[in-house]
Amino acid sequence: MARIAVVAGDGIGPEVVAQARKVLDAVLPGVQATEYDLGAARWHRTGEVLPDSVLTELAGHDAILLGAVGDPTVPPGVLERGLLLKLRFAFDQYVNLRPSRLWPGVAGPLGNVKPGEVDLVVVREGTEGLYAGAGGSLHRDTPAEVATEESLNTRHGVERVIRDAFARAGRRERRKVTLVHKTNVLTHAGSLWARTFDAVAAEHPDIETEYQHVDAAAMFLVTQPQRYDVVVTDNLFGDILTDIAAAVTGGIGLAASGCINPQGAYPSMFEPVHGSAPDIAGQGIADPVAAVLSAALLLEQLGHSESAARVNAAVAAELASRAPGATLRTEEVGDRLAAHAVA
Amino acid sequence: MARIAVVAGDGIGPEVVAQARKVLDAVLPGVQATEYDLGAARWHRTGEVLPDSVLTELAGHDAILLGAVGDPTVPPGVLERGLLLKLRFAFDQYVNLRPSRLWPGVAGPLGNVKPGEVDLVVVREGTEGLYAGAGGSLHRDTPAEVATEESLNTRHGVERVIRDAFARAGRRERRKVTLVHKTNVLTHAGSLWARTFDAVAAEHPDIETEYQHVDAAAMFLVTQPQRYDVVVTDNLFGDILTDIAAAVTGGIGLAASGCINPQGAYPSMFEPVHGSAPDIAGQGIADPVAAVLSAALLLEQLGHSESAARVNAAVAAELASRAPGATLRTEEVGDRLAAHAVA
Ligand SMILES: CC(C)[C@H](C(=O)O)[C@@H](O)C(=O)O
Ligand SMILES: CC(C)[C@H](C(=O)O)[C@@H](O)C(=O)O
Repeated sequence: MARIAVVAGDGIGPEVVAQARKVLDAVLPGVQATEYDLGAARWHRTGEVLPDSVLTELAGHDAILLGAVGDPTVPPGVLERGLLLKLRFAFDQYVNLRPSRLWPGVAGPLGNVKPGEVDLVVVREGTEGLYAGAGGSLHRDTPAEVATEESLNTRHGVERVIRDAFARAGRRERRKVTLVHKTNVLTHAGSLWARTFDAVAAEHPDIETEYQHVDAAAMFLVTQPQRYDVVVTDNLFGDILTDIAAAVTGGIGLAASGCINPQGAYPSMFEPVHGSAPDIAGQGIADPVAAVLSAALLLEQLGHSESAARVNAAVAAELASRAPGATLRTEEVGDRLAAHAVA
Repeated sequence: MARIAVVAGDGIGPEVVAQARKVLDAVLPGVQATEYDLGAARWHRTGEVLPDSVLTELAGHDAILLGAVGDPTVPPGVLERGLLLKLRFAFDQYVNLRPSRLWPGVAGPLGNVKPGEVDLVVVREGTEGLYAGAGGSLHRDTPAEVATEESLNTRHGVERVIRDAFARAGRRERRKVTLVHKTNVLTHAGSLWARTFDAVAAEHPDIETEYQHVDAAAMFLVTQPQRYDVVVTDNLFGDILTDIAAAVTGGIGLAASGCINPQGAYPSMFEPVHGSAPDIAGQGIADPVAAVLSAALLLEQLGHSESAARVNAAVAAELASRAPGATLRTEEVGDRLAAHAVA
């Protein structure tokens, strides 16, 4: 029986996670869920972000389902570094998986892209690059201040995520992998990524490959998002590109993500890309689709592909039936999705 | 009399620069232009990228007009680091100015954004950050390889570009500056940028300010580009965001840029954002609008605001009159723009 740790978090986090659990319970009866109180609220109450004891407990689960953490009242970096990134790094979640589909029924912002035409997945590296936390400053608050941030990239880290991208592409219809970097400026890291990509590509002659600079990819995601299948890229580029991909496919309200440790040595973590949205929290109007799609990624990762497919089908039906501009009720959407997934 | 160095460069560079010069000659008779042969062609012929003697000669000009350099046959980094970035750094061009307008007559990719609604300018830092060239690698081509890239940020460098952004906002109608960074992850550099921004903002109570993380800004440039007036950001974020801004306003075929040393201690450099486009070079079908708009930025920088306005008006008329899908001839567009600018 799957043991899931649930971090509902702040703002709309608990509201959308409740729907994701409803759907999980429906398609996988008997799943054991344990709630963990982490996020802005706990930090305000106790000053704690992620006690070691909790980290150890989380490690004992098969997966983590996260809603959203954060609040404007918490200084930048506290929860990001102390909780989200801490989990990604501690649990070696080196595949940050972010699929984007323009679902039928969803009106994207692009005039000449039709629903069904975009179906891409970004495999974002999750444990290296500028997220390593290697930086510092000198002479702070003086005219002589200097601040650095260092991007750390290893062959080990780059190769494993590129291999994952090729493996995913091999299981998809179009079998294409695009490497995105900035090799013309970041020549050291860029060269490592490009050489590693070429070496792995040589082992996969059946998979089409291309390379794009990050600025060009940002542009093409707007002008021709249809061209992408699997995109593999570094941590920061992936952060930016996946928000563009989400924007062109209907917004982060629909975007799911998984922070995955593919070998299962540690639990993987699944969360909607959206934040805690304090402005609409407590009103019961947050769209739970991103959280539910994240639960589908969780099911997939735990080997329940059929259940995952049923959840995706329920989401497809939900989105296709939405009247443009109609207000949605979080609970009702969750009920409909759970019912459809087992119908 | 203005002394301009012209680097036409490779591919479509010479074709579009010829039109920009036509327009410059029309609105500013007697401008002295000297051509410099730099780029992929010269590198292939002589192995030289930017000889010191040429750098010294360039320094003696009032401004540089650049077409495009590069070619797939040149290894990544050679011309970028050796020529483009070399000039930006050597001439301390710390303001990398990239305006984006959705011109009437231009069909952008966004369904619900109307021409005239987008008019923003990105003030991208041009001499620091990850472009500093501070990086290296160890154990290259072994499983132990590690590669680093370091982002270097100084109070000096950050403050001057933020001041420039506020000064520009003060001359615009909406008077708003958005700082874009990633303070929640890049906490050291992010804090320097945020504290400096707040300090400069305090001196400008008449200017509206906001902060956004780079991933959110990338998304909002797609979903609500209308919300931006002046955006100030670091070198790499600016590289990515300006390609998104170009994409949502009709593509890099229309995007101009200036690498500016505001004090005029060194020449500023003006260039279209697009590259050398070898695929369409030599056919006379490249759109020279981006090069001509770059010439308008050059005029503005040299104090010829009225001439710059006339060039912009000519571009507006040209774009408004284009029939959708019609093929354009580079020369003809240049002729029309030059004629209109002096009419
Ligand atoms: C909250 C932040 C640390 C995080 C990131 O930058 O990875 C977020 O933007 C994301 O994409 O999951
Ligand atoms: C060619 C490259 C070095 C350059 C950059 O990254 O700045 C280009 O992308 C640009 O935006 O001018």
